[in-house]
Amino acid sequence: MKTVQVDVAVVGAGTAGLAAFYAARKAGAGAVIIEGGEYGTTCARVGCMPSKLLIAAAEAAHAVGRAAGFGVHANGGFRIDGHAVMDRVRRERDRFVSFVLRDVEDIPDAECIRGQASFVDNHTLVVADHTRVTSKAIVIATGSRAAYPESFKSLGDCLITSDDVFDWYDLPKAVAVIGPGIIGLELGQALHRLGVRVAVLGRGGRVGPISDPEIRAYACATLNEEFTLAPDAHVADMHRYGDRVAIRRAGPQGAELMEYFDYVLAATGRTPNVADIGLHRTTLELDAKGVPVFDPFTTRTVSADGASPIFIAGDAGNFIPLLHEATDEGRIAGQNAARLALGSEARPGLRRARIGVVFTDPQIGIVGGGLRALKPGTFATGQVSFEDQGRSRILLRNKGLLNLYGDLASGKFLGAEMLAPAAEHLSHLLAWALQNGMTVAQMLEMPLYHPVIEEGLRTGLRDLDVKLRAAQGEVGKAA
Amino acid sequence: MKTVQVDVAVVGAGTAGLAAFYAARKAGAGAVIIEGGEYGTTCARVGCMPSKLLIAAAEAAHAVGRAAGFGVHANGGFRIDGHAVMDRVRRERDRFVSFVLRDVEDIPDAECIRGQASFVDNHTLVVADHTRVTSKAIVIATGSRAAYPESFKSLGDCLITSDDVFDWYDLPKAVAVIGPGIIGLELGQALHRLGVRVAVLGRGGRVGPISDPEIRAYACATLNEEFTLAPDAHVADMHRYGDRVAIRRAGPQGAELMEYFDYVLAATGRTPNVADIGLHRTTLELDAKGVPVFDPFTTRTVSADGASPIFIAGDAGNFIPLLHEATDEGRIAGQNAARLALGSEARPGLRRARIGVVFTDPQIGIVGGGLRALKPGTFATGQVSFEDQGRSRILLRNKGLLNLYGDLASGKFLGAEMLAPAAEHLSHLLAWALQNGMTVAQMLEMPLYHPVIEEGLRTGLRDLDVKLRAAQGEVGKAA
Repeated sequence: MKTVQVDVAVVGAGTAGLAAFYAARKAGAGAVIIEGGEYGTTCARVGCMPSKLLIAAAEAAHAVGRAAGFGVHANGGFRIDGHAVMDRVRRERDRFVSFVLRDVEDIPDAECIRGQASFVDNHTLVVADHTRVTSKAIVIATGSRAAYPESFKSLGDCLITSDDVFDWYDLPKAVAVIGPGIIGLELGQALHRLGVRVAVLGRGGRVGPISDPEIRAYACATLNEEFTLAPDAHVADMHRYGDRVAIRRAGPQGAELMEYFDYVLAATGRTPNVADIGLHRTTLELDAKGVPVFDPFTTRTVSADGASPIFIAGDAGNFIPLLHEATDEGRIAGQNAARLALGSEARPGLRRARIGVVFTDPQIGIVGGGLRALKPGTFATGQVSFEDQGRSRILLRNKGLLNLYGDLASGKFLGAEMLAPAAEHLSHLLAWALQNGMTVAQMLEMPLYHPVIEEGLRTGLRDLDVKLRAAQGEVGKAA
Repeated sequence: MKTVQVDVAVVGAGTAGLAAFYAARKAGAGAVIIEGGEYGTTCARVGCMPSKLLIAAAEAAHAVGRAAGFGVHANGGFRIDGHAVMDRVRRERDRFVSFVLRDVEDIPDAECIRGQASFVDNHTLVVADHTRVTSKAIVIATGSRAAYPESFKSLGDCLITSDDVFDWYDLPKAVAVIGPGIIGLELGQALHRLGVRVAVLGRGGRVGPISDPEIRAYACATLNEEFTLAPDAHVADMHRYGDRVAIRRAGPQGAELMEYFDYVLAATGRTPNVADIGLHRTTLELDAKGVPVFDPFTTRTVSADGASPIFIAGDAGNFIPLLHEATDEGRIAGQNAARLALGSEARPGLRRARIGVVFTDPQIGIVGGGLRALKPGTFATGQVSFEDQGRSRILLRNKGLLNLYGDLASGKFLGAEMLAPAAEHLSHLLAWALQNGMTVAQMLEMPLYHPVIEEGLRTGLRDLDVKLRAAQGEVGKAA
C-alpha cells in the first residue's frame, strides 16, 4: 500500500471539496483531494443547473400558452418536442459538467487520489485499499445523495430520483412526485408545464421550505390552480401494476382516488454521504443522523478528546445544502485546515445572510431563515399581496403574497417568506438589506423605480413600519 | 373674479402636484390644487404604465418565437391580434388612470380649481380669468409634453407622439421612430416585436440614457441584431407621400435608402410646461430653456430679489423626469411650501440614489447617474459580459455587458451602466448598495444564490476590486 503524508486531505471533489482544496493550497498548505465517484458536482450533474434548464423549457411552454392573454395566438396550438427539450437539457448540462471536469483536470495527478476514502483515525484515511493518507488536517466534503424509504424499492424501474430525470431522452406521460420539497415542487411544476400529467404528493403538509403558515397556505392554493399538489395526501397504497405504478389515496368527500403513473419520482430528501467513511474510527461527536457536529463559522467538527483536526463542508454537513453555502463552507474549511496544518488556529469565516429560492412560478423566496428562525413575541409582520401590484398585473403575473418580519426592539429587518413573482430578485434585495443590518425605516428610504415588482416591497415595508412604530409607541407609553 | 387666499397653491394635478398637495395638507397647511387640462398623470395616461403594457404584449410575442430554442413549437406559427393587443393596453391603461381620477375626486371641491393658471407675481396666480389665488407659497408642477421640431408638422396626421400610440385600436404596418431615447427605444422594439416594420433613427449617436461608450456600442450592436436602430442616421429628407411618409437617408456604401412608413413617431424629447404660465411676471431666475433654477434638495426656486416662495417639482423642473423622482420632489415641495407658509424654514428632503431603467430587451440600467456623473481619473471600471453567464445562458438571455465604477480613493461603489438581462433587478441591488455607501469589497461579502443572473455582478465586482486594489497598491508604493 502506498503511503502519502500531507498537510490537508480533502475527501470529495464536489463543490465544497474543490473550494476547500483550492483554499488550502492558496493558504500555503500541501493538499490532496480524494474522490471515489465520478468527477463533477451535484450542482452541475443533477442539481441546480439541469433543473433550471428543464424549468426554462417549461417556462417557454407556459409563455406560449399565456400569450393569448396579451393578444398573441398560436395558430394551430403548440407542440412540446420532448426529444428536443431533453436534448437541450442534457447538452447544456454536459457543458456545465465539462467546466467542472476541466477544473479537476488542471489539478496535478500527484494531488488527486481516486477511490473511496475511509477514516482509520482522526489523522489517517485509507483510500480503496491502495493508499494510506496521513494528514495534519482533513476536510470531509462527501456530499449527499437522494434518499427514499426502503419500501419504494418494490417499484423497481418505475422508481426514479432527480438524478435520473436529466438523463431522459424523452418526456414520459405521467409522473407522481413524492415529496413537495424544493426538488419535488420545481420538477413537478416543470414536468406539468411540459405536458406530463403530474401529481405532487406529500405527507404532513409541508410545501417547500416555507415555514410561515399564511405563505404556505397561499402557495399551496396558488400552485394547485395549475397542477395537483397535495402536501398531505394520505397515500393508502403505491404498487407496481404492469409497466406502471398504481397509487391509491384519499379523494374528496371520503372517496378514494386511484391513479396510474409511468414513474414515481422520489423527492423525499437527500442524505449526507457520511455513513460509509469510517467515522466510528474517529473521535468525532455525531448527531442523531450520524453527521459530525460542527461549528458553522469555522466548519470545525467537535471531537470527544480535545481539538478536532477534521472539518466538514457542503451537503455532507447537512447544514444549508445549497451551492453558494457549500462554496463558502468549503473555502472556510480549506483555509482553517491549512491554518491548523501550518501551526496556527482556526478562525470564523464569513457566513452570509441566508437566501432560499425555489424556482417554481410564482417563485418561493425565504430570506434570513424565514419565520422559523424567529422567536415568537419579538417581531412584527408586514404583508403585501401581489394580486393588485401594478407591474405584476401588467405582466399577468399578479399572484403572490409576501410576509416581512421586523424586530420590535430595534426596528431592524429580520427576514421574509414569499410566494411571489421575481422572488429570486426580491430575495437578493432583502438579503443584502438584512446583512447590512438595515432597519425597516432605512429600507423605506431606498430608491424604487417605477413600475417595478420591487414596489410591492414598499407596500409591505410600510405595513411593517406602521406595526413596529405602533409597538414602539406602546413601549413608550408603558415606560 | 373670485378671490382665494390660501397657504399653499399647487399648479398641476399630476404625479408631482398631487404629492405636493397631499404633503402640504398633511403638514397642516391650507392648500388648493389647480389643473387646466384633463385629470390623470403622464405616467398613467401616456407614460410608464401604457408603455409597459405594450412591452408586455411584445415580450409575449417574442417568447412564442423564442420557445423553439427550448423544444416548444407553435404548430401553425402565431398571429398577433392587433385589436386584442391594443384593447388590453387601453383597458388596463384606463384602469390605472381611474385610480388617479378616484384620488382626485376625493379632494373636496373647494380645494380644486379648474383652469389654466398664470402668475401675476410671486404670490399671486390668476386661473382662467375666473379666480385670483393669493398664496403664501406656490408649487409649480405643470409637467411636460412631447416636443418635436416645427418642420415635422408638415407630415400632418402621419406625425404622432407617444401620447397617440396608446389610443390606437389596431397596430399599423410600418412606423419610423425618430429619436432613440428611452421612449423611442422602448416603443420601437415593442412595435417591432408586435410585427410592425420599424426603423429607429437618431442623430449624433445617442442610445437611450447610456453615457459609457463601451455599453453604448454594445447596446447599439445588440439591439440592431433584432431591428433597425440607426442612432446617427443622416436623414436627408422626410416628407408626406400620399397616406404615408417617405424617408430618405444614407445607406451602406454611399448608397441612399428610401423607405415608406405609415407613421412617424416623434420621440424627440419632452419639454417642461413652463412657457405659458407667466413666469416673466415673477422674479424667478430662469435657465436657458426658461425653466426656473432650483435646489434639488429643497425644490425651492431662486429669486432675483431674496428668498423665493415658489417651489418646483416633477417634469416641470426638468431635473430627473421619472415618476419616482417626481413623487419625491412633489412631497419635498409640498412639505417645504407648507413650512414656509406656516412660518418655518424650507429643509432639504430625501433624494435617493439614482436609478434609470429602459425596458428594452435586454434592458438598459443606469445606477448613480452612470459614467457621465463621474470625474475622469478618480475611478476604476470593472466589467462583466453576460454572454457566458450561467443562468442567463440557461434562459437563452445571455446577451449583456455591464460596467461597474468604483472610487480609487475610498474603494466605494460609484455606479454602473449596463445592457443586461434583468437589468431592472440588478439596478435596484446596485442602487441600494450605492445609497448605503458600500465599498466594492463589502458588496463582495453579500450573498448571491445559485444559479442567478445576479452572479454576474460578482464577476464584475471582482474585476473592479482587483483594479481598485492594484491602484491602492500603487498609492501605497508611492507613499
